[in-house]
Amino acid sequence: MDIIKVSARSRSSSVAGAIAGIMRERHYAEVQSIGADAVNQSIKAIAIAHGYLREDGIAVACIPVFTNVDIEALERTAVRFIVWVVDEASLPEALLAPLPDEA
Amino acid sequence: MDIIKVSARSRSSSVAGAIAGIMRERHYAEVQSIGADAVNQSIKAIAIAHGYLREDGIAVACIPVFTNVDIEALERTAVRFIVWVVDEASLPEALLAPLPDEA
Repeated sequence: MDIIKVSARSRSSSVAGAIAGIMRERHYAEVQSIGADAVNQSIKAIAIAHGYLREDGIAVACIPVFTNVDIEALERTAVRFIVWVVDEASLPEALLAPLPDEA
Repeated sequence: MDIIKVSARSRSSSVAGAIAGIMRERHYAEVQSIGADAVNQSIKAIAIAHGYLREDGIAVACIPVFTNVDIEALERTAVRFIVWVVDEASLPEALLAPLPDEA
């Protein structure tokens, strides 16, 4: 399983496209980032990907988990976002905003 | 509905306790933060709360959405995390790590 690695300099729209593509194909993705700025880019990307996938009738959810990674012999704590597909009927009202072409 | 507001200086363990408490009671929560450091604290708190709630047999998921808020007459973009309960059977394997008392 490839992990989508997101840095502070990653473009959130590009990462969103990558997440959406993998979710359409495999219904599962992992997105990893280290540091607040990279986590922020990941979150923006997941928010955008959620919108893309809603338009395709795919409801996604995520949960962040901590994981240790070695970078240049130093152990760092990374945040890994587990992204998976959930039943659309389980989505709360706040996520059921009209789709762009319904607005 | 109260929104849990998280700043860059919020303690993630305290926020995690607040999220877990609200989720046990209402099965739904909203967590809002502005800026990368505050988003990072929110994410840490959600990761910790996920662990707490798993021990109680409650499976949660979240999705970030953008929202505009006025702060001192300036419009800022906040990230609001919608947190809800999902069927435990829908959880991917990566979230089914042994619970502490099973390890």
